[in-house]
Amino acid sequence: MSRFEIQAIGVIRSALVELEEAPRQGDEGGYEAWLEFSPEVAQALVGIQVGDALIVLTWLHQAQRDVLQVHPRGRLDAALMGVFATRSPDRPNPIGLHEVSVLEIDGQRLRVAPLEAIDGTPIVDLKPVLKAVESR
Amino acid sequence: MSRFEIQAIGVIRSALVELEEAPRQGDEGGYEAWLEFSPEVAQALVGIQVGDALIVLTWLHQAQRDVLQVHPRGRLDAALMGVFATRSPDRPNPIGLHEVSVLEIDGQRLRVAPLEAIDGTPIVDLKPVLKAVESR
Repeated sequence: MSRFEIQAIGVIRSALVELEEAPRQGDEGGYEAWLEFSPEVAQALVGIQVGDALIVLTWLHQAQRDVLQVHPRGRLDAALMGVFATRSPDRPNPIGLHEVSVLEIDGQRLRVAPLEAIDGTPIVDLKPVLKAVESR
Repeated sequence: MSRFEIQAIGVIRSALVELEEAPRQGDEGGYEAWLEFSPEVAQALVGIQVGDALIVLTWLHQAQRDVLQVHPRGRLDAALMGVFATRSPDRPNPIGLHEVSVLEIDGQRLRVAPLEAIDGTPIVDLKPVLKAVESR
């Protein structure tokens, strides 16, 4: 199959630094975090406003890419399930999807919540939630 | 910034073959399509059922990666907007998000709808829509 090169466009800055402390999803106790974008992509942020609902796409750099099945939500008594039927970070291409709201904009930095990804996680894309941007 | 290698895990097979014919979003006249997965990731599909709501992540291989601003929805009378504030396929990392329902399962192939991506588009990840899988 084909291979492609993906490049980080920014990084997550969060008080959440240990993977073990991370909630499984942002709405299960997600933190506020800053999305810090590279100057090279600053022009791509134009039009984003406080209150916007966005989807942050991350590269879950600590994930295991050779895992194809997991016990859902880490429960060892549950049957093994394919990672594509779960939100496990361990998967062939560990892309994380995080739906957040924009709380503050400071140049190339966006303060958002809730976000369960740990400090240092690379950002690879940012998109509006479709319902909120029918006119875009 | 860091670079990562992303690998196609499958491909979209659709009657939609020309980019010019593609609707902008799946719910604007999206097609039925088959998701054909590589045998190497077959185990990762275990647990997916007909009727499931899934998010297909694709690599929009015909996108332009050096575009940072666009006229929203191609309307030249609209002000330029950063691609991160739009769903433009042209963006630094052209990852497509497509919310679909599973209509049929045939081995390593899933028939889904609606899907606006063209025939031959590489698939890079597959996840459940969160609302539907609280127990996973």
